[in-house]
Amino acid sequence: MKWIKGDFLHAGKAKDVYAVKNHSELVWMEFKDNLTAFNGKKKSSFKGKGQVNRDISSLVFRFLKKEKINNHWVADINDTGMICQKIKVVPLEVVVRNRLAGSTAKKFQISEGQSLSKSLVEFYYKKDELGDPFISSEQAIAFGFVSTKSEIEFLKEKALQVNEKLKYFFDAIGLELIDFKLEFGKGEDLKNQGNKPDEEGFLLGDEISCDSCRLWDKKTGEKKDKDRFRLDLGGVEESYRKVLECLEQKWIQEIKI
Amino acid sequence: MKWIKGDFLHAGKAKDVYAVKNHSELVWMEFKDNLTAFNGKKKSSFKGKGQVNRDISSLVFRFLKKEKINNHWVADINDTGMICQKIKVVPLEVVVRNRLAGSTAKKFQISEGQSLSKSLVEFYYKKDELGDPFISSEQAIAFGFVSTKSEIEFLKEKALQVNEKLKYFFDAIGLELIDFKLEFGKGEDLKNQGNKPDEEGFLLGDEISCDSCRLWDKKTGEKKDKDRFRLDLGGVEESYRKVLECLEQKWIQEIKI
Repeated sequence: MKWIKGDFLHAGKAKDVYAVKNHSELVWMEFKDNLTAFNGKKKSSFKGKGQVNRDISSLVFRFLKKEKINNHWVADINDTGMICQKIKVVPLEVVVRNRLAGSTAKKFQISEGQSLSKSLVEFYYKKDELGDPFISSEQAIAFGFVSTKSEIEFLKEKALQVNEKLKYFFDAIGLELIDFKLEFGKGEDLKNQGNKPDEEGFLLGDEISCDSCRLWDKKTGEKKDKDRFRLDLGGVEESYRKVLECLEQKWIQEIKI
Repeated sequence: MKWIKGDFLHAGKAKDVYAVKNHSELVWMEFKDNLTAFNGKKKSSFKGKGQVNRDISSLVFRFLKKEKINNHWVADINDTGMICQKIKVVPLEVVVRNRLAGSTAKKFQISEGQSLSKSLVEFYYKKDELGDPFISSEQAIAFGFVSTKSEIEFLKEKALQVNEKLKYFFDAIGLELIDFKLEFGKGEDLKNQGNKPDEEGFLLGDEISCDSCRLWDKKTGEKKDKDRFRLDLGGVEESYRKVLECLEQKWIQEIKI
């Protein structure tokens, strides 16, 4: 085996992060079976969820890489591991919305599903103790979460590019991408990995899965994502597995790396 | 008397708005004695508060006019009236912060009074039913509160210009401007009033007073503004009257219009 799991570094709600022995430039992300919502207040799990999310994320990251959106994915390992380039995490959740749902629909008391004439980018400060509050670009700069206005503009632009790619990616299996959350980090330019950070030094990180995207059936409007868990709609596991199955059927040949 | 009060148009928490007979381009703002906080949940009043706020606002608007910041002020009338140019209100509260206090300090759990390396502009959606939520520039555009990105950038820039003027204005009487709230409207270009809207068509409106600014004594740090009421510190009336007295003493000659 090429990679050996090193020291435990960090526990997330749905993933743990380990070092990779003899590769200080990499981390080993271990996807867990935990399902959490509402900032960890609601908890559940199903057996195999870590593997499903690892597999979906891996497909997404490989697709994005092929589409010239560099990201931290290096390789899959075992059933639930992902070898990623180590990045210095930017403490922002970058949300893109194509239709209104979730917290923003609630805040403006607008009925869920209303479409937006242009996709909307939002920032949330990643800080569990504060409940990941919604913040403005101006606050992100003022509080030093990014260094400059051009960095925040870059993240906005990059998130919108990812949106275009992901809309196409999910549309191909009959799902509409309602919204999703991205996380970025500052990465080093590792000549041999092909994970070249963007001009501003950013590299797309974390995971992209049914936990972090709202995906609705294009025909029926049925929710296929974590809202099934948040809203107690049932069929969470079946839905996650079905999304993976359809994505693999559609994309696995095309994006083989 | 030059102006005659017309039909009642609108009741605000601290001001009522009337038409001006035979002047469809003007409104008559009547400052009330009400003191409210926390989106109207906390209520009080003191006799003469309307007059004090009218007088402070009038001084501020005349000072700003002299400093080439056009605004809706046309004339004072009676003890509590202000004749203003009619504007189509933009449903945004534009907040400028020089030090952290209030809701933003609370949101980030940062101790009140921390200074910011650069002044921070924030937007809140003026909608009582929603509790005037904090919004981003991107949301202001997406929900049509302003029409274009250049409009929101213009409001930001204008608010920062007003900040520089107001810091100077209050510093001259020993007060530090911690933060304040502005409201803008779209105004028509009335050739004879001298209230020419800015390039983007905006005109500064509403009031600027101890209700809408945080003002701390430069030496002692003592609060001289509505926080005395919000936080039950006592001496609200004395504080408002003292601010007015000092401003008049310092500025009334210089800004006579």
